[in-house]
Amino acid sequence: MIILMKTGCTKVQIDSVISMLQAKGLDANLSVGREATVIGVLGDKSKLNTENIEVMDGVEKCVPIMHSYKLASREMVPEGRKVTVQNVTFGGEKLVMIAGPCAVENEEQITKAALGVKAAGAQMLRGGAYKPRTSPYAFQGLEDEGYRLLRKAADAAGLLCVSEVVDAQDLTAAGKYCDMIQVGARNMQNFRLLREIGRSGLPVLLKNGIACTIEEWLDAAEYILSEGNQNVVLCERGIRTFETATRNTLDVSAVPVVKERSSLPIIVDPSHAAGKRSLVTPLAMAGIAAGADGIIVEVHPDPKVAMSDAAQQLTLPNFEEFMGKCRKVAAAAGRTL
Amino acid sequence: MIILMKTGCTKVQIDSVISMLQAKGLDANLSVGREATVIGVLGDKSKLNTENIEVMDGVEKCVPIMHSYKLASREMVPEGRKVTVQNVTFGGEKLVMIAGPCAVENEEQITKAALGVKAAGAQMLRGGAYKPRTSPYAFQGLEDEGYRLLRKAADAAGLLCVSEVVDAQDLTAAGKYCDMIQVGARNMQNFRLLREIGRSGLPVLLKNGIACTIEEWLDAAEYILSEGNQNVVLCERGIRTFETATRNTLDVSAVPVVKERSSLPIIVDPSHAAGKRSLVTPLAMAGIAAGADGIIVEVHPDPKVAMSDAAQQLTLPNFEEFMGKCRKVAAAAGRTL
Amino acid sequence: MIILMKTGCTKVQIDSVISMLQAKGLDANLSVGREATVIGVLGDKSKLNTENIEVMDGVEKCVPIMHSYKLASREMVPEGRKVTVQNVTFGGEKLVMIAGPCAVENEEQITKAALGVKAAGAQMLRGGAYKPRTSPYAFQGLEDEGYRLLRKAADAAGLLCVSEVVDAQDLTAAGKYCDMIQVGARNMQNFRLLREIGRSGLPVLLKNGIACTIEEWLDAAEYILSEGNQNVVLCERGIRTFETATRNTLDVSAVPVVKERSSLPIIVDPSHAAGKRSLVTPLAMAGIAAGADGIIVEVHPDPKVAMSDAAQQLTLPNFEEFMGKCRKVAAAAGRTL
Amino acid sequence: MIILMKTGCTKVQIDSVISMLQAKGLDANLSVGREATVIGVLGDKSKLNTENIEVMDGVEKCVPIMHSYKLASREMVPEGRKVTVQNVTFGGEKLVMIAGPCAVENEEQITKAALGVKAAGAQMLRGGAYKPRTSPYAFQGLEDEGYRLLRKAADAAGLLCVSEVVDAQDLTAAGKYCDMIQVGARNMQNFRLLREIGRSGLPVLLKNGIACTIEEWLDAAEYILSEGNQNVVLCERGIRTFETATRNTLDVSAVPVVKERSSLPIIVDPSHAAGKRSLVTPLAMAGIAAGADGIIVEVHPDPKVAMSDAAQQLTLPNFEEFMGKCRKVAAAAGRTL
Repeated sequence: MIILMKTGCTKVQIDSVISMLQAKGLDANLSVGREATVIGVLGDKSKLNTENIEVMDGVEKCVPIMHSYKLASREMVPEGRKVTVQNVTFGGEKLVMIAGPCAVENEEQITKAALGVKAAGAQMLRGGAYKPRTSPYAFQGLEDEGYRLLRKAADAAGLLCVSEVVDAQDLTAAGKYCDMIQVGARNMQNFRLLREIGRSGLPVLLKNGIACTIEEWLDAAEYILSEGNQNVVLCERGIRTFETATRNTLDVSAVPVVKERSSLPIIVDPSHAAGKRSLVTPLAMAGIAAGADGIIVEVHPDPKVAMSDAAQQLTLPNFEEFMGKCRKVAAAAGRTL
Repeated sequence: MIILMKTGCTKVQIDSVISMLQAKGLDANLSVGREATVIGVLGDKSKLNTENIEVMDGVEKCVPIMHSYKLASREMVPEGRKVTVQNVTFGGEKLVMIAGPCAVENEEQITKAALGVKAAGAQMLRGGAYKPRTSPYAFQGLEDEGYRLLRKAADAAGLLCVSEVVDAQDLTAAGKYCDMIQVGARNMQNFRLLREIGRSGLPVLLKNGIACTIEEWLDAAEYILSEGNQNVVLCERGIRTFETATRNTLDVSAVPVVKERSSLPIIVDPSHAAGKRSLVTPLAMAGIAAGADGIIVEVHPDPKVAMSDAAQQLTLPNFEEFMGKCRKVAAAAGRTL
Repeated sequence: MIILMKTGCTKVQIDSVISMLQAKGLDANLSVGREATVIGVLGDKSKLNTENIEVMDGVEKCVPIMHSYKLASREMVPEGRKVTVQNVTFGGEKLVMIAGPCAVENEEQITKAALGVKAAGAQMLRGGAYKPRTSPYAFQGLEDEGYRLLRKAADAAGLLCVSEVVDAQDLTAAGKYCDMIQVGARNMQNFRLLREIGRSGLPVLLKNGIACTIEEWLDAAEYILSEGNQNVVLCERGIRTFETATRNTLDVSAVPVVKERSSLPIIVDPSHAAGKRSLVTPLAMAGIAAGADGIIVEVHPDPKVAMSDAAQQLTLPNFEEFMGKCRKVAAAAGRTL
Repeated sequence: MIILMKTGCTKVQIDSVISMLQAKGLDANLSVGREATVIGVLGDKSKLNTENIEVMDGVEKCVPIMHSYKLASREMVPEGRKVTVQNVTFGGEKLVMIAGPCAVENEEQITKAALGVKAAGAQMLRGGAYKPRTSPYAFQGLEDEGYRLLRKAADAAGLLCVSEVVDAQDLTAAGKYCDMIQVGARNMQNFRLLREIGRSGLPVLLKNGIACTIEEWLDAAEYILSEGNQNVVLCERGIRTFETATRNTLDVSAVPVVKERSSLPIIVDPSHAAGKRSLVTPLAMAGIAAGADGIIVEVHPDPKVAMSDAAQQLTLPNFEEFMGKCRKVAAAAGRTL
């Protein structure tokens, strides 16, 4: 970190900053220039709070040189990490395609979905068991029974499966039934949940919060990684903006930005960003063109009767066409599907 | 709810919407006009998903007439609710002033803060025990020991106390030590936590999420109320905007909007909105002028050494001056302090 | 438009709304239902202000059925418009590639850029003559001399050219030198300028404002179209969001949304969205995959010495590689380049 | 400005940065530390583009020490500027109250408004002649005739008057009829207009753009000041956020922030922020409590028939009550009204 002192700061002020740093076991490296006096800080900066320094007399501002995440950074694994879940690998040449309904509604629905998406080429089945809903009066999911039905359908179709966890208390059940767990947008900064997932070692799909920055997202991933769980895959699912034509705005630039700053694989969720069936395919194609390592998309055997997200779920025939278009763009981007 | 059919929709399409409604036990009231065909829906709309209707053939759009929250609505308690915590009442003529450090750091610090804010006229002591932090490497609070020290300091000063809960698992400890618990911005939509708080019956201060709308906030309050807990006080703590001069942007208009739409008391947190000591007092004054039922403000006996939020915490002398200014504005707004 | 009356509204209130409508020469179509009373409005709604109705006693809300733009709507030209500028057509199978420096700096620079981008396959040269800059002390462009040098370079290379107009007073000069003019983000709602461009008949590239919705953008296009100028091409250049890793956030979903709602061609500007060279190519690829009709990209013969936007301009070798990648994605999306 | 070099940068890279700076006539002050190498830059930085430096090899980042505006800064006039328009002074102890309809509609309406707001204590009359409207089909104002009627009404009531200018071409007419001109949110970055206003010397009310930062706003003010016009008053009118309960979100913290960073007076427009009559008074009170130097508020003799902004305009009796409440808060904040 660099501490920039105010023009005209006094020697006493400078000394007081240096003493404070030394008291915390840090090294201070002073450079006095004509325009600016600068103090470089060496050592374990986690002992330091930028804010405490910025309120000291004579200090203009602190300029962090390093980001706060380490394990999630690109520098840590310059060639990029691969996350393997059973027979599926995120971050390789082959994209991972995850498909299935918003929510597990009943055995017939999830089984139809599973068989259908498998036939069209998906590798993993999605389906919500615990649904975080804005209103307490909306359908909240089948809970643990949902996990069980998802597993059964995935097995019947020969697919892996992934489902959301909304509280640390459900990790045991989720881990029993799912190959991978998902952290939704609303829980991206549920730090307790992140730590527990870190301890569980379960492969995890970490979605971005709707109003968080990429740096904050990587800090959230760091919570999981710092507990020893390396199996983290990021999922860009759209951010809140002023646009009302879409449910959220897919930040497709998050894909190349994450590739530069982090070693973690990143996939794209076009369904929640679009909020509308007709936009799902172009957004998935855009995500792949930008370099995504996979797609997670909502597919329902009969969206008209879906208990949630009806407007944005693809039908099974839609999904087949979708796969065809994604395959072409993947090839153009030097990937396979 | 009003369902607006597309211009030129067919009788078959209209009948199909009506059948669907009737199958769910709802009444449909058809009005065919020259420009528009409209279907009014009567009955328990919680059985209905707007999205499922909007994807039906012939449907233009659904127009909700009612908001999704009921218990939190103004209609439920037109004169406004009062929430009483021991000897303190939110929503009456007298404003509730809550003050104390960002985090409980040690016994001496929290005790000094408690005695100081009590002397200047505060009724309740704040202090974080569990601190949700963006980075896993930042100070995360003293946890349960923090609750214990907070209680001890509050008792020593003759104050009530409030502290944040970040997970349902901590409710027992929080309830043992605190008079009121707080849900922070990041947990506004942690629905599991909200439900558990609803079941606990503990008085709760519910902060708004940084990118949520007021309607979503009232839906979150509804989660608590719908479990039978009436003791909900809202706290406006700022929203994320493009402005960088402040840590967040205090949405002072939330105060009169909540007063119109909801029966719940609402207080203002100027500290997290401002992010900077010099802005705290004018923002508190603005909140009171707009009709807030109280203020929660960060005060630290020695902000320079604070372990978090150093830049925005008032000193004890600052707080005394702050109270004087707030008192004048409260009087101008027809309230006491 | 549909006017929804409040539950329990009186006959006098209903009559008063109907009289008001009739006084404006509009037809009112009343439907009285059990849950809702609804008044449909027929005729030229431009005489009507939604707000005036919403403040009338007994009125719950007004629900517009139609958007406010007509000429810009998809319904007007369901097959989509093609905009032809000399020998280049926007909206056909072949994408339009526009490239060149942020600003025209001198004859040598713009000529090098022109020859380079032509060699790599661009059809049109870009280069700013009037630069809207946040600070009055920043480089503001060569003004009319910039237009002249741009024209000269375009002619030398056998390219068309496009440049920004920031005020109606510059339209004559711009029209003399440029094949197409550009309206930048800050002027998207400079309605006087839009009208004058409408009257000029000049082909125009209309960028979106950084905090505007797509509906507002189409309303802005309507200003130009309603003056008789059909030659409007939209350009998505990114929106302001909370993300700091990119200069703006490319809203790639604007491409398919515009294709659904409007007949106008739409191209993508990856440079201003990215703000950083390394992100430009993936964003352009994403835009093309999502269905864009072309790309406008910043290319400078020597970005290190560029007088503006140095960080985001491609070099000429970068641009050649860029074209190769875009060509592959275009083919995958069923287009040519 | 401070240039921070990358860890491990080479001597050649450092020399190359220094040469570049010297070639632009700037002094470079090198400090080589163990952790960081820093180059301080002295001289006229307007010759420098941060971006050009950041793309140089070996450069980590540039840290500006100074903001880009000078004349608008607090440092320039530490005690704060006063802007006097005839017999009215912005920035003194007495607040300036400006009231009147959104738009001048006809002589009777504006005259009634003028007499009414004068009677209740306003000093200045507002009324739009040129109305920037999202759709070309909405009412666009009476144009120059509007200015004339506004002047006539103001004179009849003994008030000063202010009205918006949307294009440099209207400055002559506006200057002839108005005591002060207004730049609206959409034109905050219409730099040509700002420069022309700077040259005109006319007193100006500069509103903030709905998605601009305070720094960008002060840069906009700098455009006017740098042309020699000192008579600039800022007006906070709300920003765009995700909140839908209000038309915009009043950023009340802009008041104390502007007071710290700038010498310019600042007033508050509660009407456009609120978008709804019932919220106007609490927002005005909040603005005054936060330290605003005045209020501009929409008042219409008969809002029901207003041609624009019907929902947010106060009636004359509303305005009288409004003035009473504002007066009390002003006194509590140590001001008069």
